[in-house]
Amino acid sequence: MASFEPSGVVTLLTDFGVTDPFVGVMKGVIASRAPGARVIDLAHGIEPQNVIEAAFWLSNTYVWFPPGTVHVAVVDPGVGSARSTVVTVVNGHAFVAPDNGLLGPVLADAGDAPMCEIDASVLGVERLSATFHGRDLFSPAGAELASGRIAPADIGPAKTAVVPSAYPLATADDGRIAGTIVAVDHFGNLISNITASEVHVAAADRVEIAGHECKLRHTYADARRGELVAVINSWDTLEVAVREGNARAQLGVAHGTTVTALR
Amino acid sequence: MASFEPSGVVTLLTDFGVTDPFVGVMKGVIASRAPGARVIDLAHGIEPQNVIEAAFWLSNTYVWFPPGTVHVAVVDPGVGSARSTVVTVVNGHAFVAPDNGLLGPVLADAGDAPMCEIDASVLGVERLSATFHGRDLFSPAGAELASGRIAPADIGPAKTAVVPSAYPLATADDGRIAGTIVAVDHFGNLISNITASEVHVAAADRVEIAGHECKLRHTYADARRGELVAVINSWDTLEVAVREGNARAQLGVAHGTTVTALR
Amino acid sequence: MASFEPSGVVTLLTDFGVTDPFVGVMKGVIASRAPGARVIDLAHGIEPQNVIEAAFWLSNTYVWFPPGTVHVAVVDPGVGSARSTVVTVVNGHAFVAPDNGLLGPVLADAGDAPMCEIDASVLGVERLSATFHGRDLFSPAGAELASGRIAPADIGPAKTAVVPSAYPLATADDGRIAGTIVAVDHFGNLISNITASEVHVAAADRVEIAGHECKLRHTYADARRGELVAVINSWDTLEVAVREGNARAQLGVAHGTTVTALR
Repeated sequence: MASFEPSGVVTLLTDFGVTDPFVGVMKGVIASRAPGARVIDLAHGIEPQNVIEAAFWLSNTYVWFPPGTVHVAVVDPGVGSARSTVVTVVNGHAFVAPDNGLLGPVLADAGDAPMCEIDASVLGVERLSATFHGRDLFSPAGAELASGRIAPADIGPAKTAVVPSAYPLATADDGRIAGTIVAVDHFGNLISNITASEVHVAAADRVEIAGHECKLRHTYADARRGELVAVINSWDTLEVAVREGNARAQLGVAHGTTVTALR
Repeated sequence: MASFEPSGVVTLLTDFGVTDPFVGVMKGVIASRAPGARVIDLAHGIEPQNVIEAAFWLSNTYVWFPPGTVHVAVVDPGVGSARSTVVTVVNGHAFVAPDNGLLGPVLADAGDAPMCEIDASVLGVERLSATFHGRDLFSPAGAELASGRIAPADIGPAKTAVVPSAYPLATADDGRIAGTIVAVDHFGNLISNITASEVHVAAADRVEIAGHECKLRHTYADARRGELVAVINSWDTLEVAVREGNARAQLGVAHGTTVTALR
Repeated sequence: MASFEPSGVVTLLTDFGVTDPFVGVMKGVIASRAPGARVIDLAHGIEPQNVIEAAFWLSNTYVWFPPGTVHVAVVDPGVGSARSTVVTVVNGHAFVAPDNGLLGPVLADAGDAPMCEIDASVLGVERLSATFHGRDLFSPAGAELASGRIAPADIGPAKTAVVPSAYPLATADDGRIAGTIVAVDHFGNLISNITASEVHVAAADRVEIAGHECKLRHTYADARRGELVAVINSWDTLEVAVREGNARAQLGVAHGTTVTALR
């Protein structure tokens, strides 16, 4: 596994929400094991069990953190089943996640990055609850990696076969790029998996979604108030928005909707 | 009062939500008085004024923080009235809360832990607002305890009579354990006050709630998608869930609902 | 510009919500540039694009943070357009905000505080996205100010003309004070721009809003459960609430509603 120099920063990405103490308890576990770690909430509002949305955000945001950051991602419909938990290092960042495809787009950056399966006994964890491995396994792993006490390669046995990612890729055919809404943000903006470079190659300048059509513009402010508009967002993917409005509510669509960019 | 060695960690548990700056201002007050303190959000989505839900979460989560943590809990329907504010130390953790029964289940762990009533003048607080003691009293107290400048026993006079806790306990009769939903989490899981040991003693293997019945299983993943299921959750209490669904919405019930475990 | 001694604390005030990673990425950028900075969420639930609500909260809360705090406020409907981004220093605190009137009430405290326009090249920022200046401009500026590497006056050219604030002021006429709901909190409390001193001068003791009338009381606990009540809140402005209820839902009103205090 690539070498890892911990910065002391740990990010948390979950679908736990922020109404109850699940995230707080993860931070308590980290503070107990690694008092010097600095924990940053990446996000906790991933759609429940939506591994694809988690994969989109993690792969597009980790580069904005210091090298040496440990990213702990817990979107884990299989908690308590036989699924394993893995650690890998990509571009100087360490990742802790369930083996459910969540890391697919991160790994796509890195070819065949080696992975290890977390061995609870290496962490000194004797008992796992059936429903909250975020507390019992992921947080101890994140804390030990961030403190430097355990190196990523020493956290358990090498893992050669992982669950394949279900993350969808856009496809181009005859100048039309067919993509999917993979994430929806707080403003109701509909974020697709169509990349800026795919749009550029096809010279696309308009977008179809759910029976509506809109123009591709530089930024929201180039549209009229209430107008449906497509932009290349700050993650370099195509996004459909309503200026000073909510595209999710206005179109009545959400994750998984087909979106097409064309000229 | 038991001795207290501050770790520098302060947790905040409130019903203030995270849309507006009430929690942020509490952190500003703590940063002003105790720059080295590390503040962790335990949770801010307690149902407004639901002292019982706050009591459930506080008593079941504090042990996951380092010894020496100061836990500040502000679910306080009586703010501005004559209710007092108290400090106690249990198992090496300090607690700051209104005297409204919130600390009941924490104190139940500790027999008759001594308590003190916070004296604002000890904190150097000259003026209390009528509506935001989280800022004016609880945060200064938390900061002074976390910095070690004021010991718990020195924060004000001993308090011998406290408001009794209204926290409900489950009752067992003829193999049926009757409990109550005391908390509802982000996923809509319905969390009861029936403990794992009560379930074990009764050898209960099924649950009745609001005219529905379900089986007790090891974990969510043992149920079919959409199935109503009971599990022993990660707090060692009985919980009713819908696999990859929302039990609160599906059953149309919430806090205070009766739940029965039986064989 | 007034001198500024950074305390290392940075606050973030946005309308980004906490469901997705926009705020987390801002913290990643700050951690990358200023590892020693302590970031505090002031609030992220400002009504989308509501510059007036942001102005209310920022101007009423910054004083609760340590002197030397950098307050980064991103409620920015004009992102990607030609609007500029400004820095100023008031009462020992630094502020980073879009030039859209958000700082109006803060500046009203300080007469004519000098302002600078942020020059991206001073920050070493080479490329701005069209939609997320919180990441690309505001966070780098906040980090550089908090670390002390760049002084507020050195962040770009002096800015002499700024966009005027649209923040409404209450008006008094013949003993009636006419104000506006400028913020709504998590409990549904309706917060007005009528100040405690205006109420005092007029000796007002009751309030009219949306066809309802209620009494001005000392605190929520002085009203009956479910009663509509006005109080002077902890920000020293007039607020309309329902005891242990939700005034926003009960009255069906929100931001911008007229409220009148009278005797």
